[in-house]
Amino acid sequence: MTKRPFDRLRKRLAEVSDLTKAATLLVWDQRVMMPPGGSAARADALGTLSRLAQECFVAPEIGGLLEELRGLEESCDYDSFEASLIRVTRRDYEKATRVPPELVGEMRRAAALALAAWGPAKEDSDFEAFRPHLETNVELRHRYVDCFDPPQETYDVLLDDYEPDMKTAEVRQIFDGLKEQLVPLIQEIGQAGEIDDSFLTGSFDPHEQRELGLEIARRFGYTDEEWRLDQTPHPFMTTPGFGDIRLTSNLRPDDLSSLFATMHEFGHGAYEWGVDPGFARTPLGSGVSLGVHESQSRTWENLVGRSRSFWRYFYPRLQEVFPDEFGAVDEEMFYRAVNKVHPSLIRIDADEVTYNLHIIVRFELEQELIEGRLAVKDLPAAWNARMHEYLGVEVPSDAHGVLQDMHWAAGSLGYFPTYALGNVISVQIWERALEDLGDLDDRFERGEFGDLLEWLHLHLYVLGRKFTPQETIERVTGSRIDAEPYLRYLREKLAPQPA
Amino acid sequence: MTKRPFDRLRKRLAEVSDLTKAATLLVWDQRVMMPPGGSAARADALGTLSRLAQECFVAPEIGGLLEELRGLEESCDYDSFEASLIRVTRRDYEKATRVPPELVGEMRRAAALALAAWGPAKEDSDFEAFRPHLETNVELRHRYVDCFDPPQETYDVLLDDYEPDMKTAEVRQIFDGLKEQLVPLIQEIGQAGEIDDSFLTGSFDPHEQRELGLEIARRFGYTDEEWRLDQTPHPFMTTPGFGDIRLTSNLRPDDLSSLFATMHEFGHGAYEWGVDPGFARTPLGSGVSLGVHESQSRTWENLVGRSRSFWRYFYPRLQEVFPDEFGAVDEEMFYRAVNKVHPSLIRIDADEVTYNLHIIVRFELEQELIEGRLAVKDLPAAWNARMHEYLGVEVPSDAHGVLQDMHWAAGSLGYFPTYALGNVISVQIWERALEDLGDLDDRFERGEFGDLLEWLHLHLYVLGRKFTPQETIERVTGSRIDAEPYLRYLREKLAPQPA
Repeated sequence: MTKRPFDRLRKRLAEVSDLTKAATLLVWDQRVMMPPGGSAARADALGTLSRLAQECFVAPEIGGLLEELRGLEESCDYDSFEASLIRVTRRDYEKATRVPPELVGEMRRAAALALAAWGPAKEDSDFEAFRPHLETNVELRHRYVDCFDPPQETYDVLLDDYEPDMKTAEVRQIFDGLKEQLVPLIQEIGQAGEIDDSFLTGSFDPHEQRELGLEIARRFGYTDEEWRLDQTPHPFMTTPGFGDIRLTSNLRPDDLSSLFATMHEFGHGAYEWGVDPGFARTPLGSGVSLGVHESQSRTWENLVGRSRSFWRYFYPRLQEVFPDEFGAVDEEMFYRAVNKVHPSLIRIDADEVTYNLHIIVRFELEQELIEGRLAVKDLPAAWNARMHEYLGVEVPSDAHGVLQDMHWAAGSLGYFPTYALGNVISVQIWERALEDLGDLDDRFERGEFGDLLEWLHLHLYVLGRKFTPQETIERVTGSRIDAEPYLRYLREKLAPQPA
Repeated sequence: MTKRPFDRLRKRLAEVSDLTKAATLLVWDQRVMMPPGGSAARADALGTLSRLAQECFVAPEIGGLLEELRGLEESCDYDSFEASLIRVTRRDYEKATRVPPELVGEMRRAAALALAAWGPAKEDSDFEAFRPHLETNVELRHRYVDCFDPPQETYDVLLDDYEPDMKTAEVRQIFDGLKEQLVPLIQEIGQAGEIDDSFLTGSFDPHEQRELGLEIARRFGYTDEEWRLDQTPHPFMTTPGFGDIRLTSNLRPDDLSSLFATMHEFGHGAYEWGVDPGFARTPLGSGVSLGVHESQSRTWENLVGRSRSFWRYFYPRLQEVFPDEFGAVDEEMFYRAVNKVHPSLIRIDADEVTYNLHIIVRFELEQELIEGRLAVKDLPAAWNARMHEYLGVEVPSDAHGVLQDMHWAAGSLGYFPTYALGNVISVQIWERALEDLGDLDDRFERGEFGDLLEWLHLHLYVLGRKFTPQETIERVTGSRIDAEPYLRYLREKLAPQPA
């Protein structure tokens, strides 16, 4: 105990981080590798690890060290590692000490069990099999909310876990602005006539898809040394440790959506990969919020992966691999097809415009659930009605409706809004990158993505959680969250052109 | 804290078990899935988890509970769950409290780093790249040995971790007996002339091998619900949780050794799979010792998997899959080839007879290392000399010599002798099973292995760690460890028959 208080704090935080990363691996494994028989044991192990991580973090010793370190924090630059670590840890600590470790463990355990039930329930489109788990998750979130001072809106507490400092009212304002402009845009596009995308459905060998996805990801910056790519029903990215980035994609034999999923998850992975290695095993060592995270997945999936210049580079390769399907389809037809705007049932397959309405549906339902205005048993009907109202689609089954996403199974209520926020932020950051780098299209056409990765790495990824999400966005873009660039981008790219 | 002391003990032990199982998964993942870039972070996480598991286990609260529970233990049957759990936990506790958690964490961390270095070192046959790691591991074992009362022989302390209560002197006596009978047996077999096994080398599609291995394992009792099979350079089995049995096999494209590796690891898996589910999350919930464990892997690999009756059932299937290789090879030729006795370089490929000499070489070298009579830097030369002396083979490179096994990288010194003990025990148990079940060959010929699995399950697997290894062996076989049945089995099966 002769060490400096700052070193003692780091040591404690490293321990918490190790436990958290171990839990991360347990979840990855559960979703990617574990035989189903392991579910119960895994839920127990996750419950214990999460509880212990929480216990280690909220230990009075850490509180004491944070007090002791106020002097050091004040004597260091705001931007310094020391001040940032103390500041961010204090914020996390003040929040974490509100929540009993038992509750944290119980939430994790219940989520592991719910996840195990969700897979088969989705497969059988059997909401009733999943309902009790979701009820438990919602009930546990009520207990979680009760740990904090009464917020302006109950949902604020949930949202804060994924988008720190953001309030429900702010999100609502942004989403109202999106809805106001996107609904007429969707109508306008719909009236301009149907785009042919029939060739995107066919027979696409999953093995080939995986290889193509890897080929793209490697062009972007994926290496076998530090990354891996697996197959899951629901694509995701996770990092069980520094230098260990795990992507999954959903390789469906009848469409090419896995390519976009791989690019999407690459974006998440790149953000984590680029965090300052000096932040490893500290609370600074990850992306700053899920909104900012999603901005990066959407950047690589959409701003890069659905651009004309990307496909100028990659479409010949795709034609080479699938000559029967694409031999007679020219590049422009393909480009328009992968950018077709059309209301549909599945969020992760939605186009860039209607995607946001999928999110708004979930945002509204989550608020109603957590505020007790909607019972879990009534959720499927409410889902189907809302999808009809906002997107004009009929939901044929819960598998294509309320059961499609795993987030609620994983206990992640309050997470979905960050997806649409990510869209908004992505274009703000993108415009700044273009200001510095100039036009990127000629580089993309040559399959060169290194300049973009480097810019994002140096301006954003490296920062990790050093600053708040708002500070981070302002540092990178010079402004607060603002939907206008995103809406402008969508109109320029996708609104019908005057003949 | 109003709970009964026994329940409080179970709760504490469940926590320790969860941490240990999480560490188990981290190791599995490191060896099977993790990109190499994750090594450093993984070593840190493993160090922390192992240290915390140790800290949780040696907590004074557990010591206090064990004292409180002496009355309960005495009032319950020796065979009862309660008495067994208290008794076994006390034994573990008395041993564990000798070792500082920091040392446990450090051993685990060093082993993770050594394992990461071993892979490439073996690939490049570069002992020097591995040497510092092995030196660290040996040095840490010295510190570990120092935690205990001076033993009769230093090696006793290491051995006890893998084969509790067994002394080096006992092992030496058994091994001397083996050496005495096996060396002339090997000579006798060698003089009887060469068996043709050239057809076992060829081109065998690894994917087909994997499918065949799974086919066999499923016949034995493997299910997708609770098991999985992956590919690693060194086959192994591990259980990151009840109902979650993980096997790996080494799918080499030029031979069929993976089939035997898969059967071998199935045996380990079956033992863990069969432990009483009521023992989950307690110190009773695993196999009792590595010797008994190995007896089961060798049972399924050799007593079943190298038997005539097994191949009567399975050889037609093998011929079907590899018609070019085996179309002209009859069943008896094949049977004799997979049972060919011939001194060779690689332990895991060795035949049933010479295998034991591979173990004896390691057993002797380990004693010399831990007693300081042999320096790590001199190990390759000592290895090569001993292999020449005992097996008459010349070691062409360290990859085929001292670097071939991962055990020393994983810090497992004292582990190897259990392999030969396992051979000995396997036949003792096998003979008891045959007494109850009668001749099994007709069942094996029909591809029926369920009676054997059930017998082993009910008589051995289910016991877990309830009794000591000696008690377990005596309960199952009616006698102490005895090499005679094994030697008789080897002679009957493999000694040249009088013309």
